[in-house]
Amino acid sequence: MKIDKSRLEELNQSKEWLHSGTLNGLLDNLASQNIDGQAIIEQLSKFQVAIPSWALGAGGTRFGRYNFGGEPSNLEQKIYDVGIIHSLTGSAGAISLHIPWDIPSDAQAIKELASDLDIKFDAVNSNTFQDQKGQKHSYKFGSLCNESSESRNQAVAHNIEVIKIGEQLGSKSITVWLADGSSFPGQMNFRRALDHTSDSLKRIYAEMPSDWSMFIEYKPYEPHFYHTVIQDWGTSFMLANECGDRAYTLVDLGHHLPNTNIEHIVSTLMYKGKLGGFHFNDSKYGDDDLTVGSIKPYQLFLIFNELVFGMLNNNAENPDLSWMIDASHNLKDPLEDLMESLDAILIAYAQALLVDQALLKEAQQNHDVSYCQQILQNAFRTDVRPLVRQARINNNAASNPIEAYRKLKVRKTLIDERGMDVTATGL
Amino acid sequence: MKIDKSRLEELNQSKEWLHSGTLNGLLDNLASQNIDGQAIIEQLSKFQVAIPSWALGAGGTRFGRYNFGGEPSNLEQKIYDVGIIHSLTGSAGAISLHIPWDIPSDAQAIKELASDLDIKFDAVNSNTFQDQKGQKHSYKFGSLCNESSESRNQAVAHNIEVIKIGEQLGSKSITVWLADGSSFPGQMNFRRALDHTSDSLKRIYAEMPSDWSMFIEYKPYEPHFYHTVIQDWGTSFMLANECGDRAYTLVDLGHHLPNTNIEHIVSTLMYKGKLGGFHFNDSKYGDDDLTVGSIKPYQLFLIFNELVFGMLNNNAENPDLSWMIDASHNLKDPLEDLMESLDAILIAYAQALLVDQALLKEAQQNHDVSYCQQILQNAFRTDVRPLVRQARINNNAASNPIEAYRKLKVRKTLIDERGMDVTATGL
Amino acid sequence: MKIDKSRLEELNQSKEWLHSGTLNGLLDNLASQNIDGQAIIEQLSKFQVAIPSWALGAGGTRFGRYNFGGEPSNLEQKIYDVGIIHSLTGSAGAISLHIPWDIPSDAQAIKELASDLDIKFDAVNSNTFQDQKGQKHSYKFGSLCNESSESRNQAVAHNIEVIKIGEQLGSKSITVWLADGSSFPGQMNFRRALDHTSDSLKRIYAEMPSDWSMFIEYKPYEPHFYHTVIQDWGTSFMLANECGDRAYTLVDLGHHLPNTNIEHIVSTLMYKGKLGGFHFNDSKYGDDDLTVGSIKPYQLFLIFNELVFGMLNNNAENPDLSWMIDASHNLKDPLEDLMESLDAILIAYAQALLVDQALLKEAQQNHDVSYCQQILQNAFRTDVRPLVRQARINNNAASNPIEAYRKLKVRKTLIDERGMDVTATGL
Amino acid sequence: MKIDKSRLEELNQSKEWLHSGTLNGLLDNLASQNIDGQAIIEQLSKFQVAIPSWALGAGGTRFGRYNFGGEPSNLEQKIYDVGIIHSLTGSAGAISLHIPWDIPSDAQAIKELASDLDIKFDAVNSNTFQDQKGQKHSYKFGSLCNESSESRNQAVAHNIEVIKIGEQLGSKSITVWLADGSSFPGQMNFRRALDHTSDSLKRIYAEMPSDWSMFIEYKPYEPHFYHTVIQDWGTSFMLANECGDRAYTLVDLGHHLPNTNIEHIVSTLMYKGKLGGFHFNDSKYGDDDLTVGSIKPYQLFLIFNELVFGMLNNNAENPDLSWMIDASHNLKDPLEDLMESLDAILIAYAQALLVDQALLKEAQQNHDVSYCQQILQNAFRTDVRPLVRQARINNNAASNPIEAYRKLKVRKTLIDERGMDVTATGL
Repeated sequence: MKIDKSRLEELNQSKEWLHSGTLNGLLDNLASQNIDGQAIIEQLSKFQVAIPSWALGAGGTRFGRYNFGGEPSNLEQKIYDVGIIHSLTGSAGAISLHIPWDIPSDAQAIKELASDLDIKFDAVNSNTFQDQKGQKHSYKFGSLCNESSESRNQAVAHNIEVIKIGEQLGSKSITVWLADGSSFPGQMNFRRALDHTSDSLKRIYAEMPSDWSMFIEYKPYEPHFYHTVIQDWGTSFMLANECGDRAYTLVDLGHHLPNTNIEHIVSTLMYKGKLGGFHFNDSKYGDDDLTVGSIKPYQLFLIFNELVFGMLNNNAENPDLSWMIDASHNLKDPLEDLMESLDAILIAYAQALLVDQALLKEAQQNHDVSYCQQILQNAFRTDVRPLVRQARINNNAASNPIEAYRKLKVRKTLIDERGMDVTATGL
Repeated sequence: MKIDKSRLEELNQSKEWLHSGTLNGLLDNLASQNIDGQAIIEQLSKFQVAIPSWALGAGGTRFGRYNFGGEPSNLEQKIYDVGIIHSLTGSAGAISLHIPWDIPSDAQAIKELASDLDIKFDAVNSNTFQDQKGQKHSYKFGSLCNESSESRNQAVAHNIEVIKIGEQLGSKSITVWLADGSSFPGQMNFRRALDHTSDSLKRIYAEMPSDWSMFIEYKPYEPHFYHTVIQDWGTSFMLANECGDRAYTLVDLGHHLPNTNIEHIVSTLMYKGKLGGFHFNDSKYGDDDLTVGSIKPYQLFLIFNELVFGMLNNNAENPDLSWMIDASHNLKDPLEDLMESLDAILIAYAQALLVDQALLKEAQQNHDVSYCQQILQNAFRTDVRPLVRQARINNNAASNPIEAYRKLKVRKTLIDERGMDVTATGL
Repeated sequence: MKIDKSRLEELNQSKEWLHSGTLNGLLDNLASQNIDGQAIIEQLSKFQVAIPSWALGAGGTRFGRYNFGGEPSNLEQKIYDVGIIHSLTGSAGAISLHIPWDIPSDAQAIKELASDLDIKFDAVNSNTFQDQKGQKHSYKFGSLCNESSESRNQAVAHNIEVIKIGEQLGSKSITVWLADGSSFPGQMNFRRALDHTSDSLKRIYAEMPSDWSMFIEYKPYEPHFYHTVIQDWGTSFMLANECGDRAYTLVDLGHHLPNTNIEHIVSTLMYKGKLGGFHFNDSKYGDDDLTVGSIKPYQLFLIFNELVFGMLNNNAENPDLSWMIDASHNLKDPLEDLMESLDAILIAYAQALLVDQALLKEAQQNHDVSYCQQILQNAFRTDVRPLVRQARINNNAASNPIEAYRKLKVRKTLIDERGMDVTATGL
Repeated sequence: MKIDKSRLEELNQSKEWLHSGTLNGLLDNLASQNIDGQAIIEQLSKFQVAIPSWALGAGGTRFGRYNFGGEPSNLEQKIYDVGIIHSLTGSAGAISLHIPWDIPSDAQAIKELASDLDIKFDAVNSNTFQDQKGQKHSYKFGSLCNESSESRNQAVAHNIEVIKIGEQLGSKSITVWLADGSSFPGQMNFRRALDHTSDSLKRIYAEMPSDWSMFIEYKPYEPHFYHTVIQDWGTSFMLANECGDRAYTLVDLGHHLPNTNIEHIVSTLMYKGKLGGFHFNDSKYGDDDLTVGSIKPYQLFLIFNELVFGMLNNNAENPDLSWMIDASHNLKDPLEDLMESLDAILIAYAQALLVDQALLKEAQQNHDVSYCQQILQNAFRTDVRPLVRQARINNNAASNPIEAYRKLKVRKTLIDERGMDVTATGL
């Protein structure tokens, strides 16, 4: 299914009177603060976030999973789904594949389809956190860190294969998330596990094409509940330094201990030129994988504030960041959930662009703590939704994507096409 | 020092052109959603929050404290300080005293001063969490829970004295916060400590005038680090039930374990008619006592959403809630910090008043999770600051209180009057 | 498969020389402290813990599951597995069934088999946290709390059916664990959800035979990540009080927020006569469901210290506690894991029985904090394993159950009997 | 006051019959496991832990402090107190000074006194987390990280002065703990703060004598409640690498977010040759500064297990570790509390020395998770107190230090000498 752009234009027109009023009011208000709202709209229009191929169907928990009708059952359908989101939002111009769930049978055809829908291939993701049917050596006790060289070699070979598949599609980076760890004190020797992981990562790094990057994810716990080999940004940063210049840390918002100041980590990584990518989601308790912005929107704004500052002051060699949504859609329509995520991301980005960095610096140097807080909160309190809507209109997308999605009865069409009981690969 | 109201009017007038534009834009926008903005402004005008007498000077941590110039050194000066805040914000029409730090030498004179400044006496607070000079029996090992009946009796007598002082001033409630607990396994017998606490509370309850209420605070840890006798809402609720109809639970936002869903607790207490009061502050790690709204503004909105729902659907016997700010002003000017707090509270309240409860109920009954989220976020994303400003203007207060405070050079005046090196009683 | 008791006796004999030496040394040491070690051995022999039917196969996480060979594929085989554990340990004389996973086709035959193996039927467990194939109304948006009366009625009827099945087998209690909750602010109305839950529980309570008890579990999060209807002991306690005298709170060690003082909750519930049951497991991060005692053995001891104190001072109407292991065996042989759990439980119980309660009370009343700590730590530091071994020998079980299990090649026999690729029902 | 060693010998003799029995039983038991108990006793005898000068008086919280009688009022008395602990335990052969609280007026005399009591001078500690009376530039908004170069320069100069004082006494290292951070989003620019801190540390490092080491402490929060410049081991490790080979990370057990796997951090730091020192304490909630071993004794054992493994497999350039107790004695007699700490440390060390590393490695390589757990737990469950007692007897100290302390009425003597109302410097 593809979205009919003329229908979007109609829908946008019908709300134009309301939108233009609030937009103009906001632009005036910003102008009175010497902020160029149009420039912000342009930056928002350019902002693109990757959709992971596994997020297009319903997720679940260890207690069960509730199917959602019309899920995509193959890679082609997944790309169509991203195409729908991109048509509606104008900001989902990339897909991130997961191997082995999304191995293309005909890479050329898949590339053409994606190109036709204006979708790029972002980082490819390897999977050594579960055993695939018929797999020779198990990852039950680790992959890149395993005491057994056979499991390690197999996991390294898998990552290299993932890079090869990515090359065919035009990806330029691989994301390595390792579940490797242990659930009981004594089960694993921390030092040997770290040593093996470092060696394995270097072997994968050595096989990357020279224009590729490696993103190393970290996570404190789950699926192991005592120790994870790459438990925090410090370990990822250390390993990335050991691998080389094109190895970076990837931050997934849900992969932190309670109360972690994530924006501080983001700032340090950008400062040191080692921030490679971002996985957006939100959480209250652990790696809850909820819609980004649904629980802690102020934290999201503070993170974007660091990202904007980092991008403006980037003296180090950070790459263009690889942005991706990584949530689990257990209760909502996955496509609606992804569009809510994109909305929250653009809102936080717009708010961060409102911050008057010169004024903030001055207040910081004066130790005027109240005023520092007010500068940030003034940006956050501003209702920037008219800017986000205009950015979408400028991209020929829907002013209000979810409303359009519902009016166009997209889910019903997908169910009609694909049926109620399909399960997306990998779920 | 007293604020010159005509100066406020001048300041408000100078920004009127900007304010009225954004206000009208917002009122139109709300009208298009069938929301009566004027009614919300009225409710905001009526909302009054108590200032605790100990918050008017600089706070500190166990590692030290940095004095702030011009702190009030006696009860009269504290009331003048609240008067300043109330003049500027129109929403600080009450003070909450702390005994023994604020025993009035001439109750009648103090009452008249407060009345003159339009300030009421909210709940009085007892102090059995530290020893006062010359105190006969120590609270080092507990007060109402102490194994020693002498310490218990002394603590009960102190609370009764606090009630008597409150009666003289027109207070109608007492807040009991107990530090009682233990720092090492084995130090205290949980059951005996709970039993003693229940008995002591009943003895205090029995001495309250018949139109008084008792608010029982809970806290999981600090200043004791293994166990606190009243560690959570469940214990406070149980004790309040044991005491009687006029005993209630008091929620302090900072008194929860990591990740607690506080709004859920608020909802349950209101539902059962047992929510008596609220202490506003914010925190990232523990009982950090930061400015409310500075860390988790969305949580504050969600709490107000429950409060508004509870007030609209109050089938049970909740009293009028006793609202108080309870933060520690370690780095900011205490008066500015309190005004930032009042601002954040009114913003959250205004946002909660925007929620369309009928629409939300319908979406909940349809299990339309995306839409439920959008209804709340639409209210939260709306920039309600013009409503709050108008509510202040209607109360003859400052449209922008902190700006006015700075333009009127209030702190400088206070320092001139009181000196740089005064320390507020109790700090 | 059944364990040959004469083989156990042989194995025990072969280590007798070593065991009797350390046991006698310990008994002398205890005697020097006026502790009767033989009496403790007797209490340990009598202590019985239920094994849940779902714990006999490999568990998993949302990221995957690794099969374990020889898993039981039906209820009969599950009972045989518990029989093996009970033969080896002498302390697993009960099974706790999970409906609909374990509906007996021939209740009488199952009862006879269990009786033959000296196994009782402990609490039965209902399941409304996932949809079963062909189920009419979904629990995706709640069961007892659902906005839809159809889902609620179905869930109530299921619980009543579970009670009926339990009656046939001789159970005397039902454990209700509800996943009911929401993952996004706004999704559910807290008050209506609580109200519906209370009503539904009362309807189930009303259908219990007069000698039955209901155990109400609580949990702060997972599988929902914003709010759980019964989020803490306070809510469970309130609901149990609303249901009636035979409704109790059930404590699962993993169902708490970070840093919760669980032993304090246990103490309060026993004091108020409302502690009904216990689910043993251990965790470092969340509901990790690790082997009890593997992460926080001192906490387990402190909990048993409260339980022992509560049982000695039980002025209220607590029932005989229903003890159950509730862990997820993702990495270890499930039967070995359960035996490690039983070992840890008996060790903690033995240590708690060593505490000199009179001495402790005296030290508490003297506020001798150092000594209080030493009394508890002296009990915990004592190596009580000889007492536990002797208790097992007295029960005609194995002195060292896991060693015996391995020497008798139990797992190999089970794999030979049942195959490598069976999956236990419900997993 | 000095301890009369002949009195200790008498006291030891009176319990000899009981001690030698249990010791011999244990040595036999260990021999049956091929463990040389005597070798462990020797290692325990050699283990020395530094006492910080500020721990000899009563600590407090932000809510108050309860004085303890007989506190040392000057550096000389503090050294006498450490002498008492060292005489009684044989394992407190060092003191760690805090400048400016402990500036010696006559360094030579102080050195002689310490030498006379067999006490070395461990790391010296600088203090830039509070303002001293008459200090020119404030640290309210940071010291080494401050936006103001004047505050930074003053803080650097202070650290250099601390090194000079340390040199006079024979110290070989400086510990830098920085409170530097911010309490509100926006207050501080993360990147500039980190940059300033790095520069300042390098300036201090450059002034260290060539045989000195620098230990950089980290802490996630408190006394600032939004961000701390050196918030975790990763930041400390990065800064230490930037400073040079003789800069190391220092781990304080209380300085971690909830649920952190500290032993994993210890392992990584030792592996990379960057672990410099250790501050012992225990906690349930935050930086509670309780007696080490009083809350999580198993965690302490697991940490020692990594330390022992690291010391046995030290291929990298870790220095001899600097061990120190860093607790706050709010409720117990400080000297008793310190002796309880030393006891817990030696017990955990002894348990870790029992672990059969070869067997553990084999079990890890076989993925025999149950057995791995049992190997660690067998060591932890063993009652090693007889070994610790014998190590003390071999050092001519008290078999049971606290019992001896009480029998010798040390506290009473100190109160007689010094009075009830002295407060230790810095408290």
